[in-house]
Amino acid sequence: MSLENFFNPKSIAVIGATSDKNKVGYAFMSNLLQKNSGSENVANRKIYPVTLNEESVLGLPVFNSVLDIPDEIDLAIIAVRAQIVPKILTDCGQKNIKNVIVISSGFKETGFEGAELESQIGEIAKKYNIALLGPNCLGVISAKDDLNASFAGRKPLPGKIAFLSQSGALGTALVDWSFQEGVGFSKIVSLGNEAQLTETDFLEYLENDSDTSAILMYLETLNDGPRFMEVLSRVTTKKPVVIIKAGMGTHGNLAALSHTGALAPQSDVFIAACKQAGAVTVSSVRGFFNVVKVLSQTTQTATPIQRVIVLTNGGGPSVIAADLIDRSKSLSLVTLSNDTKEALREVLPPMAAIGNPIDVMGDALADRYEKSLQILSEAEDTDAILVILTPQMMTETKKTADVLLKFKDKINIFPVFIGGEFMEDGRKELIKSGLSCFDFPRDVVESLDYLAKNAPKNKSPLHRSKDFKRQDGEMMDFVCMKNLLSEYDIFISGKFLTKKEDLENTLQELGEGSYAMKAISKQAVHKTESGAVRLNIANLEEANRVWEEFWTTIPAVEGVLIQKMEKKGREVIIGMKKDNTFGSAIIFGLGGIFTEAIKDTTIRVAPFGKEEALKMMKDIKGIKILQDFRGEPPVNFEMLSQIIVNLSRLALEHPEIKEIDLNPVMATENSATIIDARVMI
Amino acid sequence: MSLENFFNPKSIAVIGATSDKNKVGYAFMSNLLQKNSGSENVANRKIYPVTLNEESVLGLPVFNSVLDIPDEIDLAIIAVRAQIVPKILTDCGQKNIKNVIVISSGFKETGFEGAELESQIGEIAKKYNIALLGPNCLGVISAKDDLNASFAGRKPLPGKIAFLSQSGALGTALVDWSFQEGVGFSKIVSLGNEAQLTETDFLEYLENDSDTSAILMYLETLNDGPRFMEVLSRVTTKKPVVIIKAGMGTHGNLAALSHTGALAPQSDVFIAACKQAGAVTVSSVRGFFNVVKVLSQTTQTATPIQRVIVLTNGGGPSVIAADLIDRSKSLSLVTLSNDTKEALREVLPPMAAIGNPIDVMGDALADRYEKSLQILSEAEDTDAILVILTPQMMTETKKTADVLLKFKDKINIFPVFIGGEFMEDGRKELIKSGLSCFDFPRDVVESLDYLAKNAPKNKSPLHRSKDFKRQDGEMMDFVCMKNLLSEYDIFISGKFLTKKEDLENTLQELGEGSYAMKAISKQAVHKTESGAVRLNIANLEEANRVWEEFWTTIPAVEGVLIQKMEKKGREVIIGMKKDNTFGSAIIFGLGGIFTEAIKDTTIRVAPFGKEEALKMMKDIKGIKILQDFRGEPPVNFEMLSQIIVNLSRLALEHPEIKEIDLNPVMATENSATIIDARVMI
Repeated sequence: MSLENFFNPKSIAVIGATSDKNKVGYAFMSNLLQKNSGSENVANRKIYPVTLNEESVLGLPVFNSVLDIPDEIDLAIIAVRAQIVPKILTDCGQKNIKNVIVISSGFKETGFEGAELESQIGEIAKKYNIALLGPNCLGVISAKDDLNASFAGRKPLPGKIAFLSQSGALGTALVDWSFQEGVGFSKIVSLGNEAQLTETDFLEYLENDSDTSAILMYLETLNDGPRFMEVLSRVTTKKPVVIIKAGMGTHGNLAALSHTGALAPQSDVFIAACKQAGAVTVSSVRGFFNVVKVLSQTTQTATPIQRVIVLTNGGGPSVIAADLIDRSKSLSLVTLSNDTKEALREVLPPMAAIGNPIDVMGDALADRYEKSLQILSEAEDTDAILVILTPQMMTETKKTADVLLKFKDKINIFPVFIGGEFMEDGRKELIKSGLSCFDFPRDVVESLDYLAKNAPKNKSPLHRSKDFKRQDGEMMDFVCMKNLLSEYDIFISGKFLTKKEDLENTLQELGEGSYAMKAISKQAVHKTESGAVRLNIANLEEANRVWEEFWTTIPAVEGVLIQKMEKKGREVIIGMKKDNTFGSAIIFGLGGIFTEAIKDTTIRVAPFGKEEALKMMKDIKGIKILQDFRGEPPVNFEMLSQIIVNLSRLALEHPEIKEIDLNPVMATENSATIIDARVMI
Repeated sequence: MSLENFFNPKSIAVIGATSDKNKVGYAFMSNLLQKNSGSENVANRKIYPVTLNEESVLGLPVFNSVLDIPDEIDLAIIAVRAQIVPKILTDCGQKNIKNVIVISSGFKETGFEGAELESQIGEIAKKYNIALLGPNCLGVISAKDDLNASFAGRKPLPGKIAFLSQSGALGTALVDWSFQEGVGFSKIVSLGNEAQLTETDFLEYLENDSDTSAILMYLETLNDGPRFMEVLSRVTTKKPVVIIKAGMGTHGNLAALSHTGALAPQSDVFIAACKQAGAVTVSSVRGFFNVVKVLSQTTQTATPIQRVIVLTNGGGPSVIAADLIDRSKSLSLVTLSNDTKEALREVLPPMAAIGNPIDVMGDALADRYEKSLQILSEAEDTDAILVILTPQMMTETKKTADVLLKFKDKINIFPVFIGGEFMEDGRKELIKSGLSCFDFPRDVVESLDYLAKNAPKNKSPLHRSKDFKRQDGEMMDFVCMKNLLSEYDIFISGKFLTKKEDLENTLQELGEGSYAMKAISKQAVHKTESGAVRLNIANLEEANRVWEEFWTTIPAVEGVLIQKMEKKGREVIIGMKKDNTFGSAIIFGLGGIFTEAIKDTTIRVAPFGKEEALKMMKDIKGIKILQDFRGEPPVNFEMLSQIIVNLSRLALEHPEIKEIDLNPVMATENSATIIDARVMI
């Protein structure tokens, strides 16, 4: 199935074409006929209006059905009422049209009947091997091919950023906004209901699209999490992918829940999955739009911008910018060399600050910016210069803009013109000539931080796993669980006994020390609270007594787990939770009191290898606790990572399992002892 | 000293007035003469140019010295080179001018000589009882009095927000920006170097300024932290104060430092102090400007806006807005009543979403917004409506703006028009008629969150404390410290012994159990690491042995602290650190492993009462640990708060103390036991 003809078709049929300016069918016709580019492809592109109601549309003769068109059709656009879409789509199939956009709404977004209709058109597309975009979408725009197959009133400026959107509103808003910011797009796809083609199909198409150097996605749902991750992690090694997802809020309540399920709400898994696959995730529209501006003017997107110089004519805003950079974990202020400082000293007035930020002073004309940039654009270890201009009495807004434009091909320049009308000339000058203009320092710093945080890196290969839809479940029997885990070299500490007579031998086997005894019963899930855990048992006599007590006080005892008590170690949690979208999410975190007080966990989507497991553990906030700590050597990260990897394998090979808790796991320099575990099927 | 004449003088002398349009002296003259208001005061205001070089300036006759002016002068503005400012200021004093603005730069911002000159003019002002603003400032603007005593080219729109700025650049940028946003100001003061009058003086003045309903401050330094807090906490009960402070970044490194000093870097104390006094602190210029927009259109500023409805014509952005609200701790989405929903159902098309967010659909004309707002503006428990408009094919931008304006006096309406040129008409329409227009949902949500987080509340009275400048210091002797602390009812657990013979009696006194022994020595500050702490001592025999070991292995032992070991309890830290600006900062936090892994602390500036101490403890992230936890009852917050209050009193009465650590304090249901303490003088 080729998507190429969505963007560069030689012939297009518009079904539902009309001369009525208030209708979508008119907007499409009119947009398709507006061709600016002189390329042969574009000039020869044929547009065929199809309708029953009119004789000609925009001067073109009309056909009653696609079947009547004497030409081959590369792309059909359907904008008729939902009820007759199946009929029209069948016509397209019979005409052997392989790419179809259904604009019409009235499908699954309207309820049960619409959903029926939608699955119907999905079936028809499948039958005729049609690549179907929509329904309920706004269409497609391609800059290079000068194609506006959408009802956006005005085609966006050409550029190198592609945008895939599940929200029509955000798409039109972004396009409208892009004009005033001088931001251009390579391709825009409004995904609609995704009856067939999904965000992942177009993402994959854009992977090798040479016109696209960065990809934006607005997502509300994902159809196939594992495939999305697989494709995404491939694409992000080639070009940055920036994702904004709606529906990330959590009403989640951590109260008293220390099990894996509560520690990995779905939105957290989504963000973890995107990051793991190397994408940049953004949480606000403003953040998203700002990242677009930064990407649109960044010359090389392969290595992220991290080392920044701030150049300003006003102290206040530059101090704030420096603060923001300082607080970002991924950015840094360049420390200027003495040579650079001396050179600056020579061209700037004696009162100018020549550290970083460099303050050329409130009375600076454009020439001071120019002299400084001549020096700074050559500075070592510098990725970008953030240039702040505030409106002072002598400020030359437009001239300063012209200076910045001179340097834009030498180094990444991010102009921040703070103010209003006074700055307007300069702002327009920049945008006209291909530099974005930012309003406030945060707009740049936050965007650079987003991009740098997720610099592409080597990623573990991802396999697909399906059939993991979650249902309500029950706790796995202890013995089954113990056996299942041990198949994957995950061993629960201690011995499980069902006969009191075995106590003596077992204590001997475990060796001298004190012991813990745990009654295993489905009716005592919270062992501590229900009295099913006894600690500090010193000898056989005490053990026998506890055994008796268990059998008399705990309902439905199946047996007793006896463990040697660990004197030392730091508690961690390792867990797995099935996520409806991504499959197995593996959770690692500090255990015990830390889990309950603050949610200090990190998430990865399975499967992944040891290297990723090691990285994952380093992500927790309290990592210090597991490293050299109070005279204790670091815990054995190797052994922990082996458990994590084994657990991730287990989860994939047992799709019926919904949740696994290994909690607590006591970690020391040379051991990782699993004290307790739970598995939910 | 009255500040009134800075804003509404009847007569003004401009020293350094000139006809040279490139000079500041011209800008002032020209701005002062531009009077739009017809009020009698303004019309009769006299302007006297003073210069040696010209015969008339802007048609006004010139005086050679203020002493030559035959009229009384309420305000003098000095814009001559720094070196002759002392002479001119002396003239002003002799002329009995009580309010002077020194615009000239070349003072302490330039180094040692300038600082000399600055202290000289401070002395002169003092001698003649002059209220002096500046030097190195941009002047003053007052809307009501139609006074532009600044070199801002254009007077801001009149409004109800006052702005005090230590940054000239930010001030001019804010004014320039305010025109395009339709935001007005009551008074603007550029504070300059603050040779005499400070931010606090003007804050105090604005407290009772009936034209000002909200105050903005840009701060870089504070001269007198305690007085600032005292005034600020009074003002914030009357009107919101929003503060942006530059220089908040911290290169702070938590590595291995668990003592109070490391837990309270100066910037954290600043923020804590502002919040404690009821102010809103903002960290980015964009955040600051957005708060200004929100404040400028909020009708009542006394109670914060918290309960929000989102109304939209596009799903994507509204979901993101709802997410942002959801994640804010201080805001909430209104749950619409069934009546409201039914009413909406009747006026909106069947496919419209009538939950909150309410989606009037992409094809909505202005009338759907109007019908919805008629219902929603009457909705219960609602503080504000965030109205999102995205550019769709049929969208009526300007008409929708007119609809919003109809409701602006009924309820707080925050329009968010996402897009560019298409939205421009609507945006202009709103701003023209007194509504701000926001670009993105976050701009509103973040601002409301800032404002709601610090809703005014009852605050403890604040006293002044001075003379606490910090120097390098040394550790207080253990015995002195124990005595000092006990004067304030802060008792270190256990007995301090210097004679081995006392061991036996002491163990009896402490009662049965196991004991801890700690060798007290100035040469063993890190007790655990230097072997000066021994735990789990069972009896007298062992205690004697440890005693001997201490005396042979630890250098300079002064005595031994013997404590009964606490079986239970949760570790907390209580500490105090002197801050150069605010005096005593009191720190509370979870102790032990929590301090080291994550910095879970909260800060208040002393002194404060028990109520504030109780609130303070609730601010830590891991508060759960101290409440009902794993079957343990809550710790005794009463006792902890008593220690906190006592410590804050001690700190105030002993300005020579720089740092106090009570660490750890073991807290249980009915005790708060101080296990160890340190005091730095």
